Amino acid sequence: MDDGAGSDFLQLHVAAAPARGRTEWLVDALRTAVVDGRLPPGSPLPATRNLARDLGLSRGVVVEAYRRLADEGLVTARTGAGTTVNGPLDTAVGAPAETPARSPVLPIPTRDGADVEFNLSPGVPDLAAFPRSAWLRAERAVLTGLSAGELGYGDPRGNIRLRAELAARLMRTRGVRAHPDDIVVVSGVAQALALLADVLRRRGTTRVAVEDPGSRGARDQLVHWGLHPVAVPVDADGLVVDELARTTAQAVLITPAHQFPTGVVLAPQRRRALLDWAAGTGGLVVEDDYDAEHRYDRAPVPALYAGAPQHVAHTGSTSKTLAPGMRLGWLIPPRDLHADVVAAKHATDLGSPGLPQLVLAHLMEGGEYDRHLRLVRARQRTRRDAVLAALAEHLPEARVEGVAAGLHLLLTLPDTPDLDDTVLAEDARRGGVLLHPLSWHRERPGTPGLILGYAAHSPDRLHDAVRRIAAAVRAR
Amino acid sequence: MDDGAGSDFLQLHVAAAPARGRTEWLVDALRTAVVDGRLPPGSPLPATRNLARDLGLSRGVVVEAYRRLADEGLVTARTGAGTTVNGPLDTAVGAPAETPARSPVLPIPTRDGADVEFNLSPGVPDLAAFPRSAWLRAERAVLTGLSAGELGYGDPRGNIRLRAELAARLMRTRGVRAHPDDIVVVSGVAQALALLADVLRRRGTTRVAVEDPGSRGARDQLVHWGLHPVAVPVDADGLVVDELARTTAQAVLITPAHQFPTGVVLAPQRRRALLDWAAGTGGLVVEDDYDAEHRYDRAPVPALYAGAPQHVAHTGSTSKTLAPGMRLGWLIPPRDLHADVVAAKHATDLGSPGLPQLVLAHLMEGGEYDRHLRLVRARQRTRRDAVLAALAEHLPEARVEGVAAGLHLLLTLPDTPDLDDTVLAEDARRGGVLLHPLSWHRERPGTPGLILGYAAHSPDRLHDAVRRIAAAVRAR
Repeated sequence: MDDGAGSDFLQLHVAAAPARGRTEWLVDALRTAVVDGRLPPGSPLPATRNLARDLGLSRGVVVEAYRRLADEGLVTARTGAGTTVNGPLDTAVGAPAETPARSPVLPIPTRDGADVEFNLSPGVPDLAAFPRSAWLRAERAVLTGLSAGELGYGDPRGNIRLRAELAARLMRTRGVRAHPDDIVVVSGVAQALALLADVLRRRGTTRVAVEDPGSRGARDQLVHWGLHPVAVPVDADGLVVDELARTTAQAVLITPAHQFPTGVVLAPQRRRALLDWAAGTGGLVVEDDYDAEHRYDRAPVPALYAGAPQHVAHTGSTSKTLAPGMRLGWLIPPRDLHADVVAAKHATDLGSPGLPQLVLAHLMEGGEYDRHLRLVRARQRTRRDAVLAALAEHLPEARVEGVAAGLHLLLTLPDTPDLDDTVLAEDARRGGVLLHPLSWHRERPGTPGLILGYAAHSPDRLHDAVRRIAAAVRAR
Repeated sequence: MDDGAGSDFLQLHVAAAPARGRTEWLVDALRTAVVDGRLPPGSPLPATRNLARDLGLSRGVVVEAYRRLADEGLVTARTGAGTTVNGPLDTAVGAPAETPARSPVLPIPTRDGADVEFNLSPGVPDLAAFPRSAWLRAERAVLTGLSAGELGYGDPRGNIRLRAELAARLMRTRGVRAHPDDIVVVSGVAQALALLADVLRRRGTTRVAVEDPGSRGARDQLVHWGLHPVAVPVDADGLVVDELARTTAQAVLITPAHQFPTGVVLAPQRRRALLDWAAGTGGLVVEDDYDAEHRYDRAPVPALYAGAPQHVAHTGSTSKTLAPGMRLGWLIPPRDLHADVVAAKHATDLGSPGLPQLVLAHLMEGGEYDRHLRLVRARQRTRRDAVLAALAEHLPEARVEGVAAGLHLLLTLPDTPDLDDTVLAEDARRGGVLLHPLSWHRERPGTPGLILGYAAHSPDRLHDAVRRIAAAVRAR
């Protein structure tokens, strides 16, 4: 397809477009084409004039659709060169390190950082950006329109209005085809893991493979619920599935879209191998989609669930998009675990609180949630770029990974392989910067590293923080 | 102490009163005197003129304090006869039945009642009375004053502002002396039980005594979490502690302030025997204080925890005061279980959602929560009286119990001992009235009965519903 191509790849007709919302309709169609591979990485989008003419739309609609896709990081517009689909490649500053790691999907027990000048703990979004006004407006609308029954003991799966919004959204953004009744609203990914652990243990599963490096918090949680985590290495293509196959694990917990903490994307051949493993062994794949909404320079990676809903439990939350304090997320278990998961949710807390679910549904319905995401995504990209520039200036010997998406990056120090990164993190802390040493999230030894969350600070402050980290490294 | 008595029993001096809020100060002092037994049931309060003079307060302050205590059901003002302290006696219409029962502390799985004309399922407050405006105002104030950190991963015990409010409130209303750090904010009593079950099972506890009749939902929940419920009978004095002592149960779940579903109050000698059992065996008493805030004609019964914090886990929620859909409650475990409970909470969901905790704290701080309680308490009393009048008219042969407090009453039919109350409830449902048959909440057979929640309907509608229930009884 060249720049002058028409709209055939979209396989759509403007007659199917709703009278209102043609831009959304076109954005959805283009996004689906990218996710499906009809528009492969690097391919140009049609010139806006041509697509508008082919579809019988105004050119403004097409221009706006392209702008939104660019905001999402799906395409890049270059002056004079048209708009092209972004590739799945990680545009990390350095080459991928041989020993990858991962960012706290769940917070690990640590001092809370209230006393440090720069809290760069990974996994926390820019809480100052929380959309307070939009939230309050939505709360008012919800409280006005609420039926008394919606304040009662509800469906343990969650409010149907939110489940319907989530089904539509996960289809659109993650390629997940789920019915609202397949979805269970939970208190975040942590609760999803607790519920799955309860269900798996009852079915005789005791050994669950986890990524190494991988989230220490998630591993600790599995242990609490009586499961035995089995560490499987992660390399530049993600989880080493051959190694998984050599274990006796009956389930695997994985962060395929943006591995925590290395930021690598599970490579296509690994995705296939993983789903083959699941089909062959009957093993369950637990897909932690913790920061999939934050992409900057690459195409979205469809959820694993999209390809094998019978083998995958998909979970995500608003912790990285709104705030961890919301404690609001979702879990889509495979059909054969669904009834058990709902029973576990009922026995845990009878269901999640009603009002916040309705407020979130309202924000999604009205487009406020997407507006918020576009805003923070643009801001986070700027912050990420500031960190990269500061690292290039103050710590050029460090390797930097996992920067194409998410809220954190991984810094490794291959030139000083014997450096103890927990000591280094302690030095940085004394210098006013809280971050996680890579070894917190690692079972096997490897290159020392630091995990650095950049979402919550301005470029200037990030520059200062990086200078202090560099000083700590120099002093060792 | 006669009507002309002074203020000695209060053991207070106006110099200790805050400059603002003297009414609250006096209400607290009087309430404490009632709870402590310094003002026993039936005793007269001093004449307002005398108490005002003794304390150096304006008479209006004393009059207002007495009015508030009357609103709370603690005292009764009779024209010409002064104000007297209410007794702990249950003013049930009939004599206590020999076989008592209990109201759904937790909802049990049932058809949801959306299709019936009158949903009289017990345990649901008047959801139409939810203080929407006050909630929204509090939410606005919270969102305006919120620090970014309060939206982050918080303390798994809950926000300190709410825990501080709860500590003060539980001291004032339930005699519970707990430090804010002793309290764990949970998603309601259901989650409190799930957390305690996890902790107890790890410590080797497998058998937990439950009241019979007692909450079916709670019993089912214990079973889910691997505990074995042991039914112990309840009589007109509450749980038969001698029977408990004959079991090998290592813990007991009890609703002492208003037994579910019989509504009986645990008698003083039984309280002592229960705490002796705990001290002698090391057993844990789990006190479900599910509707303690709703009292009409009797003095408050102090919480069991107040007398033996080392043996009692105290739990309550806003499900019966605001709405079950809030999923917001508290658990105060004994000190030696505290760390384990916090670890279980962290492993379950990392902590409860932040915003609703802050909104509730704000409503408590500003007095809106108390105002709401006064409003619904007065309304519920009227509704209870309407049900009692309708029952006296249409179903005079029924015994009615548990009416001095709570949101439900128990109706038993001793004249027709062979009637199957599940069939009767099904008949009533066909007649448009959903209620719980007593046998749902009972292990051993006994007098047939119906549990009737009256909080959610107007007097007129309650009258209609009772007529239909009576028709169902007559038709059998």
